[in-house]
Order: sequence, then structure tokens, then C-alpha cells
Amino acid sequence: MAQDLTPQIDGVTIVQLREIVDARGAVLHFLRADAPDFTRFGEVYFSEIAPGRVKGWKRHKRQLQNLAVPSGRIRLVLYDGRTQSPTSGKIQALELGRPDAYCRVRVPPGVWYAFGNIGTSPALLANCAAMPHDPEEGETRPLDDVSIPYTWPAGGRVA
Amino acid sequence: MAQDLTPQIDGVTIVQLREIVDARGAVLHFLRADAPDFTRFGEVYFSEIAPGRVKGWKRHKRQLQNLAVPSGRIRLVLYDGRTQSPTSGKIQALELGRPDAYCRVRVPPGVWYAFGNIGTSPALLANCAAMPHDPEEGETRPLDDVSIPYTWPAGGRVA
Repeated sequence: MAQDLTPQIDGVTIVQLREIVDARGAVLHFLRADAPDFTRFGEVYFSEIAPGRVKGWKRHKRQLQNLAVPSGRIRLVLYDGRTQSPTSGKIQALELGRPDAYCRVRVPPGVWYAFGNIGTSPALLANCAAMPHDPEEGETRPLDDVSIPYTWPAGGRVA
Repeated sequence: MAQDLTPQIDGVTIVQLREIVDARGAVLHFLRADAPDFTRFGEVYFSEIAPGRVKGWKRHKRQLQNLAVPSGRIRLVLYDGRTQSPTSGKIQALELGRPDAYCRVRVPPGVWYAFGNIGTSPALLANCAAMPHDPEEGETRPLDDVSIPYTWPAGGRVA
């Protein structure tokens, strides 16, 4: 059954991206400045993740993220920890990767996220963020933090 | 011997990027809005390339490219076809990929480029361009075009 890619958390958008197939290798869209949900450009970087490993939890006070998975297969989990949000306390788990779930997920400030590689090869998470990286505005918590109602396997390994 | 990453073509910049190593997977810098050579953000996308295959030649009339190779190994060849350029007619061939040549290559409008996967696994070329894609301002030529003094192997295969 295809997964439900409807956003469950206020301010999150999930956009199916185009993969233009070519025998030499596909062209993969990610983000355009004229996209309806584009805000501004701060920094684009990649986070590689080894098979079975998990990175997170992380959230930003002011920075908005645009995430996509051009290679490999990732489980991305979002948790709305904003007390004033209409979806406060909500969890959304997504499986991202080509060809069925090549999406851009826009994560607003204040939403916690963590991601694990559920495939067998290294995966790449691309992040086009609305601010250049500023260590002062990011916040992390351990994967087993009890205040976040999602259980990653012990030791931060999904496989 | 380490390759020479000094730009040979007017307007090209080559910046060594940081790879922040982590047992779970590296963080790979690409482009920040406060980089000295940043101009503006138009679109970010990926071009996957299968082992041995080549894509090109391509140039843009107005669009500036920022290229990096977060996974795999690519030969990127630049050709200055601008008649008014101080480096007109110059070729520069680069081998891009981690860990020794994880770079951002800024390619100005008017410079031809083509790239081939010289590794054994699919490679990803990321492009953060200064304009959203506009088919009217891009131009292509076949890989064996005689006006470009660089010979790719017949059939567009580098391996």
C-alpha cells in the first residue's frame, strides 16, 4: 500500500518531486526559487547516513528546512513540540526515497526531526535551509529522549 | 600526485568544501548565502550519472552554476567558448569526489561543461544555479562536437 504523504503537522509541506528518467542517469528536481512554498535561501548541504544508522533529534528555533532524499532510503520522523501549534504533540513518520517517495519535505522551525537509513547502501539527505547554519539556533536531544513519543531502536540503529 | 584545483578559466571558482566526518555518516557542505562568491539562488537539483556514462556538452546564456559531487567520482570538463574571454579556448578537466576533491565549482554563463562518471557506482552531481531552469537559455552540443577541443571516448562512455 502506498504511504499517505499528506502533511500531519502544521506548517509542514510535502511535495512530490520530478525524477526525469534518462539512460545515463536521472535528473532530480529539488527546490526552485519560484516554488509556491519557497521562502528564502540560506544554505544547502548534505547529510550522508550509513545503513541502519539514525541521526537526531534536532530542531531549529528560527531556521526552516527543505529536505529530500536523492539517493538511498530514509525514514524521517517529525514531532511537533510547539505548545502553541494546532498539531502540538503530533508525530509523522515518512519513508523517503526514489522512485515512489521522492519528495521535498518542508520542516518549519520548532518541529523536531530525526532520520534513519532503512536501506542497504549509504543514503543522502539534502537540506536546503532558509538560513546559513548557526550553531546558536539549533537544538539537539538524544534519540531516546522521553519527551518525544517515538521509539527508535536502542543504540540508534534501524536495521 | 594531487590534482591542481586552480581555476584555469575566467570567472570559474573552485572552493574546497568541508566534509564533517561522523561514524553515522558525514555532513557535507555545499553552498551558503554568505559565501564570498555567492550571487543568488534560482534552483537546486541533482543529476545522477551511471558508471561510465557522460552528460554534455551544455552551456547557459545567463545562468551561473554551482556544482559539487557529494557521492561517486566524476570527471568534469569545462571549455571556455566565450570569444571575448581572456581565457577563450581554454579547457580544464577536473576529477571531483570525496574525500580529496570535494569541491564546489562555480561555472559562469557561456562556459561549456560535460561530466562523466569515472567510478564504479552511480554518482550525483548537485547543481545550485542562480536562476530557475529555463529551457530557452540553455544550449547543448553532442559530445563529439568538433568545435570543442576535448575528446570524450566514442559513445559517451568513460569506462
